[in-house]
Amino acid sequence: MDVSQANKLEGIFTPLLVPLDDRDRVNEAELRRFVSWLIDRGVHGVYPNGSTGEFTRFTAEERRRIVQVVAEECGGRVPILAGAAEANVKETLAACEAYAGMGARAVAIVAPFYYKLTPESVYAYFAEIARHSPIDITLYNIPMFASPIDVRTIERLACEFPRVIGIKDSSGDLGFMMRMIAAVRPHRPDFSFLTGWEAVLVPMLMIGCDGGTHASSNVVPEITRRMYDLYRSGNHAAAMRWQFRILELFDAMLSPWEFPDGFRAAAELRGFQFGRGRQPQTSAQRADHALLSTTLQCLLADFELVERPAGGCTVRADDNAQDMVKQVATKVLQELKKRGAF
Amino acid sequence: MDVSQANKLEGIFTPLLVPLDDRDRVNEAELRRFVSWLIDRGVHGVYPNGSTGEFTRFTAEERRRIVQVVAEECGGRVPILAGAAEANVKETLAACEAYAGMGARAVAIVAPFYYKLTPESVYAYFAEIARHSPIDITLYNIPMFASPIDVRTIERLACEFPRVIGIKDSSGDLGFMMRMIAAVRPHRPDFSFLTGWEAVLVPMLMIGCDGGTHASSNVVPEITRRMYDLYRSGNHAAAMRWQFRILELFDAMLSPWEFPDGFRAAAELRGFQFGRGRQPQTSAQRADHALLSTTLQCLLADFELVERPAGGCTVRADDNAQDMVKQVATKVLQELKKRGAF
Amino acid sequence: MDVSQANKLEGIFTPLLVPLDDRDRVNEAELRRFVSWLIDRGVHGVYPNGSTGEFTRFTAEERRRIVQVVAEECGGRVPILAGAAEANVKETLAACEAYAGMGARAVAIVAPFYYKLTPESVYAYFAEIARHSPIDITLYNIPMFASPIDVRTIERLACEFPRVIGIKDSSGDLGFMMRMIAAVRPHRPDFSFLTGWEAVLVPMLMIGCDGGTHASSNVVPEITRRMYDLYRSGNHAAAMRWQFRILELFDAMLSPWEFPDGFRAAAELRGFQFGRGRQPQTSAQRADHALLSTTLQCLLADFELVERPAGGCTVRADDNAQDMVKQVATKVLQELKKRGAF
Amino acid sequence: MDVSQANKLEGIFTPLLVPLDDRDRVNEAELRRFVSWLIDRGVHGVYPNGSTGEFTRFTAEERRRIVQVVAEECGGRVPILAGAAEANVKETLAACEAYAGMGARAVAIVAPFYYKLTPESVYAYFAEIARHSPIDITLYNIPMFASPIDVRTIERLACEFPRVIGIKDSSGDLGFMMRMIAAVRPHRPDFSFLTGWEAVLVPMLMIGCDGGTHASSNVVPEITRRMYDLYRSGNHAAAMRWQFRILELFDAMLSPWEFPDGFRAAAELRGFQFGRGRQPQTSAQRADHALLSTTLQCLLADFELVERPAGGCTVRADDNAQDMVKQVATKVLQELKKRGAF
Repeated sequence: MDVSQANKLEGIFTPLLVPLDDRDRVNEAELRRFVSWLIDRGVHGVYPNGSTGEFTRFTAEERRRIVQVVAEECGGRVPILAGAAEANVKETLAACEAYAGMGARAVAIVAPFYYKLTPESVYAYFAEIARHSPIDITLYNIPMFASPIDVRTIERLACEFPRVIGIKDSSGDLGFMMRMIAAVRPHRPDFSFLTGWEAVLVPMLMIGCDGGTHASSNVVPEITRRMYDLYRSGNHAAAMRWQFRILELFDAMLSPWEFPDGFRAAAELRGFQFGRGRQPQTSAQRADHALLSTTLQCLLADFELVERPAGGCTVRADDNAQDMVKQVATKVLQELKKRGAF
Repeated sequence: MDVSQANKLEGIFTPLLVPLDDRDRVNEAELRRFVSWLIDRGVHGVYPNGSTGEFTRFTAEERRRIVQVVAEECGGRVPILAGAAEANVKETLAACEAYAGMGARAVAIVAPFYYKLTPESVYAYFAEIARHSPIDITLYNIPMFASPIDVRTIERLACEFPRVIGIKDSSGDLGFMMRMIAAVRPHRPDFSFLTGWEAVLVPMLMIGCDGGTHASSNVVPEITRRMYDLYRSGNHAAAMRWQFRILELFDAMLSPWEFPDGFRAAAELRGFQFGRGRQPQTSAQRADHALLSTTLQCLLADFELVERPAGGCTVRADDNAQDMVKQVATKVLQELKKRGAF
Repeated sequence: MDVSQANKLEGIFTPLLVPLDDRDRVNEAELRRFVSWLIDRGVHGVYPNGSTGEFTRFTAEERRRIVQVVAEECGGRVPILAGAAEANVKETLAACEAYAGMGARAVAIVAPFYYKLTPESVYAYFAEIARHSPIDITLYNIPMFASPIDVRTIERLACEFPRVIGIKDSSGDLGFMMRMIAAVRPHRPDFSFLTGWEAVLVPMLMIGCDGGTHASSNVVPEITRRMYDLYRSGNHAAAMRWQFRILELFDAMLSPWEFPDGFRAAAELRGFQFGRGRQPQTSAQRADHALLSTTLQCLLADFELVERPAGGCTVRADDNAQDMVKQVATKVLQELKKRGAF
Repeated sequence: MDVSQANKLEGIFTPLLVPLDDRDRVNEAELRRFVSWLIDRGVHGVYPNGSTGEFTRFTAEERRRIVQVVAEECGGRVPILAGAAEANVKETLAACEAYAGMGARAVAIVAPFYYKLTPESVYAYFAEIARHSPIDITLYNIPMFASPIDVRTIERLACEFPRVIGIKDSSGDLGFMMRMIAAVRPHRPDFSFLTGWEAVLVPMLMIGCDGGTHASSNVVPEITRRMYDLYRSGNHAAAMRWQFRILELFDAMLSPWEFPDGFRAAAELRGFQFGRGRQPQTSAQRADHALLSTTLQCLLADFELVERPAGGCTVRADDNAQDMVKQVATKVLQELKKRGAF
């Protein structure tokens, strides 16, 4: 096993969205085309089966097939970080072996979810996997969805298991990232700290992160790569200007969409077919999405990455419009009241 | 000090709303009229300076004056539970002495708020007060607004300090109430358990509560008293029927209002002037309130306590209306989109 | 499809713990023995693949096999409510078909988890399943682990889909249960309301619940059945006395264990082998569990369901012991300080 | 009113701890000495009556006296940001007038607390104050203690009221700070963004903050000033090295203390008498504090700001010691068990 710093996980890893065909199956051809497109636009690695890849909505067989397809398409051009969380430790270890065989650089394993576990149990879970895994492991902390991994647990795992080579943290909490770095880096200079929260990518690089895995890099891989390069080359002010623009886009893709539908809609605008998604939608939601997609198109047009929508972007679907709707609704209510509806 | 069971706090205590005049001062005449009206309708006690009484929005002097006025008006007809929380222990003890002098049966003291304290500090705070108070103390647990008081802390305080004679709990959590009763009652049969969550008053009586302090009893004192009497006389089914009706009214007064504005608006419908309130409102809020007040009037009319509004109540301001507004809003959005607004 | 009230889900359903053998596989023989033992002790139904059954820690194949084994063992003696949540709607519907074929009375489907979805998406998910399911569906609301199902969503689903026949709610929130009953029962008298929170089973029956699915019924099926029968026969006071005792046991099984390990440990004391569990444990945890298991044995001995431990139960592993340990620890710290360790 | 950028609030403002005498009164002499000591060590301004100053634990009269004393001692050497939140708008405006008269540069007003208000009500509250205040206003967002102020509310207040000149945000959330800056700065280049979370001071400066109000600057004013100066002079790497050291100290003062007791204890080590504090403590807490204070002394000694404790700092009161205690406690428990205590 090579844990030298030379081989450290660094840069922007894309947590891959998964294209589906019209029968709701993985669209392998589109997935291949998408992976190569991302690599061509500069992402340093790809990360199938993450939260952005909706790993919980695929079967164990599908998850394996996704990594297989991605590995074939990558062909060694960029490293693969393969999401390997399965129903239990035994199944997870089987996935680790499979992904090692497919040539993945490492696996990423999310903390136990559904049940909310104590730090001691989170430690026990990762320790059991780390003891037997044939491939390097990246811990994945995403406290909004899964049991949190605390600093002491990361420190224990990093100090006891050379197989544990990094952490991806999606909390977006800079103080937490600094505490992890302070606790682990003195003992493990090779350990990799990746942020999953692109809202603060540049500040995270400033405090010492090695890179990030960002859903937004499915949509604007050029920009996330540029932010990374600008920061690394010492151009902090320019990096921060892009940071502010990415934040606006990120927020628009995050809400009011269900995650990761906003990212899927935006990536469609870049020329890929992602399909309807596995989480069912009501017709009201589909109508909303059409409207919200126009907003995303305007934002991407500002980056000069797509054309403006036919109807133009003179007024964004912003607070003005919402205020307008609210005023209309208020008037409707007043009218209804007059007519004795209340 | 008399801690005999005979003197136990029991029944429905009204956490008094405070009427304000048009210069935003306590409207003492209206407060007196209101207190007597409540007593006439059967409440077992009154509780000035609670959360419903917006104690944090009055000055220390005003809080004292409120208790003074209430005490004078009660004239011993019902016991007074006086909210005595002040900025610190010294000020709180001074208030305890003042309220003892005014003839209050006991004081109620909310757990420390703003700062979120540990159980040990919550214990220390109440212990320091209990050691020096000249009047019986009711603990006040309201975890949505203040540091929570946990079961072990209540047990410690109840076992160590005879001056602590009860708890008012506004969590609405029946399991928590049962845990408190199981921990304290064997040692302190005189200890009083009052619920502050009228949504579950009858179930709380069933598990052993001694009564409640309910904001709703400002609005429908007859009904809260009736629920209590029906349960105590063994008529559980009838008590539960009123419980369901009170729940509907309670929910309508709780949201989307800011607490306790919905209760103030409903109590106005019973014939009192409460004034505009000390928390400022926007004109949009005032318009909403007028509409919501009509809904409250329809609900109170169902209880046959007020007249129906002039416009009638054929359609409640309910989901139907909201759906209607939503549909209109959706159409407006579509129209705006057609016109290229997005 | 029969949605008559005669066929309504009622009574105590046991969310089955799953025994594992020493190779961490489902111990089918023990599972069969356990199911019959429960039926003999009076549970009204069994519920495989619930949270208590750790459904997320088994593979799709294992979940199916568990229902198969349970169905065979039941042999029609009691109805089966089969947990059918899978990775996505298509897989879930396939499970629904399989469980219909095995003779399950209904399936229970937990709200989407990992991602936290809006009410509209929760509705869309259940609606899509309800449209195509060949078997009746019980919604499963467990907001501490999965996206919450709100009252409006339950109302929509109940009113639109006859296939949706009930809800299991594990929030333990009585107000919420009353709001659901008020919204749904007028339109769907056949709809079943089951509580998953045994801490408040008797109060839940009082407000109108039809029964419950309780992890504790794996351990003390006689008692949960007795509570139900006592309440139904009008003996509320006796039902409440058992409710207080169940609460103490429930709390001891819930914490400081990871769920459902305390229930597994307690059920072992009734004479079954549940194995080590699929969530790994540290040696410190295993030591703790041995100690905590003795506490559970003392509690079960109080119910006269098991023998007292050899060492006796004169002092419970309660606050006294914890205080003792704390005092010792404090003294150790003071000693270390004297010696200059700090 | 001067809202020019020249007069913008910038740099490190110390939210002043309040020294108490042995009768629990404000120790004015010590407060004066402390203020001058801080100014001598480079803080850009002082901020009495903040959360660090425990404003809720003083009376309205005391709060006014504190600002008076601070203003006299400052004598115009540094600007004063005076915490002016009182029980209601009328009292708050009276405090604003008083502090204007004392020469404060601006007031800071925390969002409404105790009740959790909607954004519309938070807006209404600040708008009412801004309309009538004779002095510039800084909003104070501290969502862990008070109603949160969201981005849209800040934008409305900043755009409508020139009197509102800045925000102090204690959330520590960089994404939130960037969203505020993006929303407000284009319209109000003079608007000041101050962070209250020193764990991330340097990253906050990087994203565009103008400074901070940091409890830690009561303890190590030299260091917080140095971090600011290093960053401003372009020495980001050195600034970050201090940031990591400040984080360690900050964490040690924050927990397991009640806020702000750890800061009071540490500031005592710099040579001031702060007294016992207004929140009562148990004897167990006082014993803990003595031990924790030694830890703080070791940390401050690392900064070469105080002497090492007599007993030395060879082993910090860290995980090693805690593990040791845990091991001892486990052995004690095992021994007790052997003796049949369980």
